[in-house]
Amino acid sequence: MNPKLIGKIIGGALLLEAVLMLLPLGCSVVHGEDLKLFVIPMLIEGAIGGILYFIADKDRDIVSREGFISTGLTWITLSLTGMLPFLISGAMTNPIDAFFETVSGFTTTGATVLTDLESLPKGLLMWRSFLHWIGGMGILVFMSAIMHFARGSQINLVKAESTGPIVSKLVPKADSTAKVLYGIYTAMSVITLIILLILKMPLFDAICLTFSAAGTGGFGVLNDSCASYTIAQQVALNTATMFFGVSFTLYFLILMGKFKLAVKNEELRLYLLIFALATIFITVDLMAQGDGTVNGGPLMALHRAAFNVGTIMTTTGFAIEDCNYWPGFSQCILVILMISGACAGSTGGGIKVSRLNIMLKAFNKEMAIHLRPEQVKKIHIDGKPVEDSVIRNTGTFCFLWMFFIIMSILVVSIDGKEWNATITSVISAFGNVGPGFGENGTMGNYSSFSNLSKLVLSADMLIGRLEIYPILAMFKRNTWKCF
Amino acid sequence: MNPKLIGKIIGGALLLEAVLMLLPLGCSVVHGEDLKLFVIPMLIEGAIGGILYFIADKDRDIVSREGFISTGLTWITLSLTGMLPFLISGAMTNPIDAFFETVSGFTTTGATVLTDLESLPKGLLMWRSFLHWIGGMGILVFMSAIMHFARGSQINLVKAESTGPIVSKLVPKADSTAKVLYGIYTAMSVITLIILLILKMPLFDAICLTFSAAGTGGFGVLNDSCASYTIAQQVALNTATMFFGVSFTLYFLILMGKFKLAVKNEELRLYLLIFALATIFITVDLMAQGDGTVNGGPLMALHRAAFNVGTIMTTTGFAIEDCNYWPGFSQCILVILMISGACAGSTGGGIKVSRLNIMLKAFNKEMAIHLRPEQVKKIHIDGKPVEDSVIRNTGTFCFLWMFFIIMSILVVSIDGKEWNATITSVISAFGNVGPGFGENGTMGNYSSFSNLSKLVLSADMLIGRLEIYPILAMFKRNTWKCF
Repeated sequence: MNPKLIGKIIGGALLLEAVLMLLPLGCSVVHGEDLKLFVIPMLIEGAIGGILYFIADKDRDIVSREGFISTGLTWITLSLTGMLPFLISGAMTNPIDAFFETVSGFTTTGATVLTDLESLPKGLLMWRSFLHWIGGMGILVFMSAIMHFARGSQINLVKAESTGPIVSKLVPKADSTAKVLYGIYTAMSVITLIILLILKMPLFDAICLTFSAAGTGGFGVLNDSCASYTIAQQVALNTATMFFGVSFTLYFLILMGKFKLAVKNEELRLYLLIFALATIFITVDLMAQGDGTVNGGPLMALHRAAFNVGTIMTTTGFAIEDCNYWPGFSQCILVILMISGACAGSTGGGIKVSRLNIMLKAFNKEMAIHLRPEQVKKIHIDGKPVEDSVIRNTGTFCFLWMFFIIMSILVVSIDGKEWNATITSVISAFGNVGPGFGENGTMGNYSSFSNLSKLVLSADMLIGRLEIYPILAMFKRNTWKCF
Repeated sequence: MNPKLIGKIIGGALLLEAVLMLLPLGCSVVHGEDLKLFVIPMLIEGAIGGILYFIADKDRDIVSREGFISTGLTWITLSLTGMLPFLISGAMTNPIDAFFETVSGFTTTGATVLTDLESLPKGLLMWRSFLHWIGGMGILVFMSAIMHFARGSQINLVKAESTGPIVSKLVPKADSTAKVLYGIYTAMSVITLIILLILKMPLFDAICLTFSAAGTGGFGVLNDSCASYTIAQQVALNTATMFFGVSFTLYFLILMGKFKLAVKNEELRLYLLIFALATIFITVDLMAQGDGTVNGGPLMALHRAAFNVGTIMTTTGFAIEDCNYWPGFSQCILVILMISGACAGSTGGGIKVSRLNIMLKAFNKEMAIHLRPEQVKKIHIDGKPVEDSVIRNTGTFCFLWMFFIIMSILVVSIDGKEWNATITSVISAFGNVGPGFGENGTMGNYSSFSNLSKLVLSADMLIGRLEIYPILAMFKRNTWKCF
């Protein structure tokens, strides 16, 4: 373990954050707002980042545990500096609120403690949404794409920050993988922006919502989230998030001309199947029971079902209505979607559809072992055999997911809120979704949660986004042994 | 697969059930109650069981899948015949209610749809509690202990019916293992009965509650469950269930003089640690917050906490108060205990403490693989190395546990009940606990659930008690292929 090397990574990330703040700064310039919101943080980031970056060691390979620890530390550091604009603007006075909001941004959760968005400076709203875009594909993946400071083992950074059971290089070199990922990401974001503009969304809203949709984050700029946009704009937003919820490896395959391989992908098919089934069930449930809110016949029910299924399963969390008024069955489907989540290697959260696929096949395998031990074969995903170690690893991951959720619910339960708020706040935070049910519902917020709960939920967002190990590695003595 | 062999097992079990009904029949004779409650079912069981048993094939080895399928079918068949006394007595008119109650008995769940126990015939109440005793250690384990009808491969029956990640023979022959298990079980039950009688519990109550405590079931004979017993009687009952929640392998070790090995057992230590921690937390929470019900200073809070922790973590479900009035934090602890459950190889349910132990060690292993791939070793339990296949199998089991719970919650959510009732009814059924929160709380019942929910909960009790595979094997086409 090399502290200077880790310092260099964190320093580089801080410098990058300072540069990225130019965008909301520009927005503030255009709108004639107070510039110190961003200038002060940029100076701080520049100073600390510069020192850390330039006193660093010579280039050296980053080993696995260094990748993990740098990732965890970088995300926490950038959240601590990224929260400064919220505090300087006076939008928040409690540092824990600001930390919660920033972590919620970076981890593409979209849970908020703010109650009146429309009174905030435009620059701050843009920073909020921009956090989603940066965190969606990953800060260190971004760094790997634009900087070159380790001898080819940046894969350990990309691995620590990417999602899913198996992370592979798309191209032989990790920095090229990162470039490809960010290239696709940027291109898709630009397309989303253009479509929203064509549909006559105001420019500022379109930019912010593109960031939120691309990162599958969910921060909006209006107090009613997306309820006052036109149905066409809502459909466009939802379709965009569905695209960003697919593994970027598939887009790379399509770019390489391997279209058939992409559409045959098992995870993609299961993802679309879940979307279709959930939408149908909820449409029928909404039509059968009615719920006292918006109503406009079968087509409107279909739109409402599809929008909410899409935004929840991609773990975005845009809202067009208050789902607290939905029937219990539909609410339950949404909670299940929060857990299953989107595809591995996308910007979405949750357990990931590919892990469900692996575990359901593992179930078949265990059943076969019990029934006909003599005939058991390996399970296959996309035609390729899956090693037992992947099943072991995925099973442990799913166990830990539930374990941390249950332990977090225990802490949040001290607040004494209703069961729906207590349970869904944690599931939503861990899956990087955003809204839940109860007071933190689609039209609600997290302002009434205690500071302890906000800290636990912030930790859950980070642990969930970085898929457990990078954050928890920091609490293992073994990690720090070789300093 | 041999249908006649399976028929013989089911037939034998039916004959055994007819014999076991002699006990409640005797109770009804003593109390001068209607005898047809038990005489009619005994004739039916005797007739069907006799035919199935005596037309069967010659003795042949039972292979693994036959063990599984016989176990699943036997439990369902015995529940269908075991529910007849409830219907004949007129205590229930809905067959689904009677099936629910009987499955709840056999699986040692203790969830009830009855609202007024004290108006029922004593014989029926005894049959209800006796179901717990029979199901606790297992019907087929019982058969293995007293009958000899397969050439030494009865281990496949014991395996399918016993709980925990690794089932091993205590002694070389499976029928001897079953005899040892039932010997210990009976001896411990007699001790419990004597203690309750010494503490001046009426004979009828003492017999029924001994059955319920031994099977960690939870059916009582009074409308207020255990609330009107003396504190000494409550403590005795709770202590008894804690003993029945320990792996019977440990009692066998103690009988063999290996006392040190027994007390060093990791699962036992974790089980006692969970009990101690949960009791302390709840005691403090009850004292700090107060809750408007029983109150009597720190000692009373400690008693209430210890009783509820013990009865829930052993998945028994006796009640001395309505825990719906408890603070949220304490309620949450109880729900977690429903999930973690008791020890493997005990009469208790839940995921089992040993599985938690394996998965938490697996977490450490995965972390180590990420941090220092070069140094990774096997995990150890009780000083012995654990194969990767056990981790894979246990992880898959935990995943399935959560998967079936979530899918069942989805179905039960159609009833439109409060979140606490919907969620805990399923967790409680799957873990074979009994009570939950909301209308099915410690002082409530399941009478208001829909027929669909009752069927799903009955299935959950069976799937949970038999640890998933024996019941689900019946739905795999592959199982039936060789008929």
